[in-house]
Amino acid sequence: MTITIIGLGLIGGSVAYDLKRRAFADHIIGVDQSVQHEQQALALGFVDDIKDLQSAVYAADLVVLAIPVNESIRILPKIMDYCSEHTTVVDMGSTKRAVVEVLKAHPKRAQFVAAHPMAGTEHSGPYAAVEGLFESKVAILCEVERSSEASLKLVTKALRCLGMRVIHMDADKHDQHAAYVSHISHISSFVLANTVLEKEQNDGAIFDLASGGFSSTVRLAKSSPTMWAQIFDQNAEHVLAVMDTYIQKMQEWRELIDKGDYAALSARMEEANAIRKILDRPEANAPTDKGVKVGR
Amino acid sequence: MTITIIGLGLIGGSVAYDLKRRAFADHIIGVDQSVQHEQQALALGFVDDIKDLQSAVYAADLVVLAIPVNESIRILPKIMDYCSEHTTVVDMGSTKRAVVEVLKAHPKRAQFVAAHPMAGTEHSGPYAAVEGLFESKVAILCEVERSSEASLKLVTKALRCLGMRVIHMDADKHDQHAAYVSHISHISSFVLANTVLEKEQNDGAIFDLASGGFSSTVRLAKSSPTMWAQIFDQNAEHVLAVMDTYIQKMQEWRELIDKGDYAALSARMEEANAIRKILDRPEANAPTDKGVKVGR
Repeated sequence: MTITIIGLGLIGGSVAYDLKRRAFADHIIGVDQSVQHEQQALALGFVDDIKDLQSAVYAADLVVLAIPVNESIRILPKIMDYCSEHTTVVDMGSTKRAVVEVLKAHPKRAQFVAAHPMAGTEHSGPYAAVEGLFESKVAILCEVERSSEASLKLVTKALRCLGMRVIHMDADKHDQHAAYVSHISHISSFVLANTVLEKEQNDGAIFDLASGGFSSTVRLAKSSPTMWAQIFDQNAEHVLAVMDTYIQKMQEWRELIDKGDYAALSARMEEANAIRKILDRPEANAPTDKGVKVGR
Repeated sequence: MTITIIGLGLIGGSVAYDLKRRAFADHIIGVDQSVQHEQQALALGFVDDIKDLQSAVYAADLVVLAIPVNESIRILPKIMDYCSEHTTVVDMGSTKRAVVEVLKAHPKRAQFVAAHPMAGTEHSGPYAAVEGLFESKVAILCEVERSSEASLKLVTKALRCLGMRVIHMDADKHDQHAAYVSHISHISSFVLANTVLEKEQNDGAIFDLASGGFSSTVRLAKSSPTMWAQIFDQNAEHVLAVMDTYIQKMQEWRELIDKGDYAALSARMEEANAIRKILDRPEANAPTDKGVKVGR
């Protein structure tokens, strides 16, 4: 099978690497708007060939689109235009409502599958690609009733080959849930970094005290601004709603500490402790961030 | 050397375990207000003996106090009263201003050292104790000019034996810095868990989407409410100041997303990316949370 990967970064590179070593792909064509990334992907060995967009799409059985979400919206109609009859396209972006919207009336809509693999790290670019990134993670497919049976089957098979559990969800519901379990985590990390770095500018020694807990909450603040600005743009409505709840709860915490109401505060922390039931599931402990570096 | 550990949980247990296997301690006496914890500590083998508080303090060359910070304030004057001439007491709590204040006028103040080892996990109790918890981490000593040379030397030696880098700091400055690099991380994690769990109550499927990024930002929400309520109590002034900055920045982010000003948002994320310089230091990657479970 010939697979074309558009966007040779963390997600695209990790998909390419695992589909190749598991013999799902016979030949992998890479496309990236950065010539440097294309050269790095060739050197790392997770693509076999580089082509222009039109030829790369036309030649593929499966096209995997793994670029920032606003760029996907812009380029997807053209990608669908370039498809041969036997080409399936899967989008791997973190928001799904806008992507299904933009292809709604496209004549080849049935050859498209909207997916979101719930896996990643805070790193980006070809060198961020890791083996086993998707192992034991969940992939969400949206609006599957508008994809053809053959395309849906092919994408599901590819995602299972990557080790993923595949579930289906309405696109708007997906975007709302993603705001809760992914987008607000990134915002809280970015804002925490902004807060602490501002303090550090005036008071250099502060990071002598930073330990494991700090590193873990602030890790996502290393994530790509380009990628995340576009996610917040496309998912603004849901993200704003979650931020409002989060800010309100933060203000309630502030009042409880200010009043010295530590009984009420303890009750909130005990409620928060219930997050154990989520974090202690086996799939939450899958080694997403510990994958083997490609080409090292 | 005889060492008495008061509080046989994550910190006390991990100290006991490493000081014993590195032959710094010949004999370890345990004290805990929970008889069950005392029995568990004996069974796990990180203490040799259990005694009542007064005998345990009197018999020790070094007393390590590792209990929630309000309980430390309450019990510390009595512990100092029980000291023999050759006993040194070190407090390991996460706040330092109140602890140096309460012993200010104590006749045996010079036998006391105020310390904060910047290490921990979100777990608690004797079974949370791990080998190597303190390896490559920083320990802050406060108001060292009020400790005797002999006591300061003994505590520094013990902390170095645990693998720690020892630095000195003013107690109030310590508490302010800890609010920035530890206490606000815990609050943002607890509040994130509160926000998402409330949503989940009405909408069960939400955690299908939770991945590595979510787990890492919310991990600290598993932490002990008793321990943290007392830290927020003792450090309320500094914690409130940091929360105000954090809430203000979160509101500014909210406005930028609402206005669709993604250029300004990207600039904030690029600023936040500078956190790399902290997280990529070797000591930030020391395996705090990966220690070997004691007795497994």
